[in-house]
Amino acid sequence: METLDAIRLRCSLKSKLSGREVPPDVVGAVLHAACLAPSARNTQPWRFVVVRGRAAVDALADAALPESSAVIRRALVVVVACARPADGVVVGGLNYYLYDVGSAVQNLLLAATDRGLATHLIASFDEAAVKRVLRIPDDVRVVVLTPLAWPDAASYEEAAAERLSQRTRKPTEEVVFEGAWGGA
Amino acid sequence: METLDAIRLRCSLKSKLSGREVPPDVVGAVLHAACLAPSARNTQPWRFVVVRGRAAVDALADAALPESSAVIRRALVVVVACARPADGVVVGGLNYYLYDVGSAVQNLLLAATDRGLATHLIASFDEAAVKRVLRIPDDVRVVVLTPLAWPDAASYEEAAAERLSQRTRKPTEEVVFEGAWGGA
Repeated sequence: METLDAIRLRCSLKSKLSGREVPPDVVGAVLHAACLAPSARNTQPWRFVVVRGRAAVDALADAALPESSAVIRRALVVVVACARPADGVVVGGLNYYLYDVGSAVQNLLLAATDRGLATHLIASFDEAAVKRVLRIPDDVRVVVLTPLAWPDAASYEEAAAERLSQRTRKPTEEVVFEGAWGGA
Repeated sequence: METLDAIRLRCSLKSKLSGREVPPDVVGAVLHAACLAPSARNTQPWRFVVVRGRAAVDALADAALPESSAVIRRALVVVVACARPADGVVVGGLNYYLYDVGSAVQNLLLAATDRGLATHLIASFDEAAVKRVLRIPDDVRVVVLTPLAWPDAASYEEAAAERLSQRTRKPTEEVVFEGAWGGA
């Protein structure tokens, strides 16, 4: 898929996840793309836990995702993106680990879209429960998680059409400034 | 360009920037791609200041980028990515604005790569000076900046070849865990 098409078509498809098997090599390719993201001083602070199979996904959903449990239970693969804040580069009081994880997960989402896989980013979960279920150390933060699932539709484009028709973005003039803040 | 090629070819090309004019519509398309990134509760906290032209870029470089001044002075366009932390969604004590800016800038870098533009992410700068030169409000953080420049080579691929041959990434087993932290 063309890069700009992947960027445009990537959207949250929480109501369109199917339980069709996602081969390990597809998951591996998507995670490889994630790891090619840039990071501050190349620290690569991202870590990914891959939860695979009905029993494991259900256990995670039941323990940690009361609000999203029904969504997650439709998928057979969930990727949990984590990082240790102590691994992050701090410049001017900003710890760049969250920035770096954002870059890597964006690569992951675009590579998934390119392969026709549906994703749905979730930042709201019971972090202590995720850590307990996945044996994640105390000093690591769970940042986001997403199912990786074939869409429950004839194609990715068909699955995404309704969602994309509802996409909202701020007007460019509120977000992009020429020359100086607010415009030159 | 294919999505996975853009992800693979994106790299920091600080020694390969040329001063050839980058048309405004190309810069606009790259920024549009940035704004299609997901964000926590669709807050879109990213803001971009576009610095364009020899005098403006030199003024920014001289004031705020003592270490990178020579690099930045080769480019005619610099994009400065900012955000107001107060706009970020806070979940479990994590403010997701830096994560969201990371996602948006990754889209920007990939769209630039797709168009054959060289980029070079910089997180180290005199933030107070950037804010003074670009009239950025006190409550906004300057997160990263990157030049957008045609590469000083016959093609993007040629410009990137040496850098990509030196790319280092942690082994997969240190970063991707199956089933639980450290592996099931």
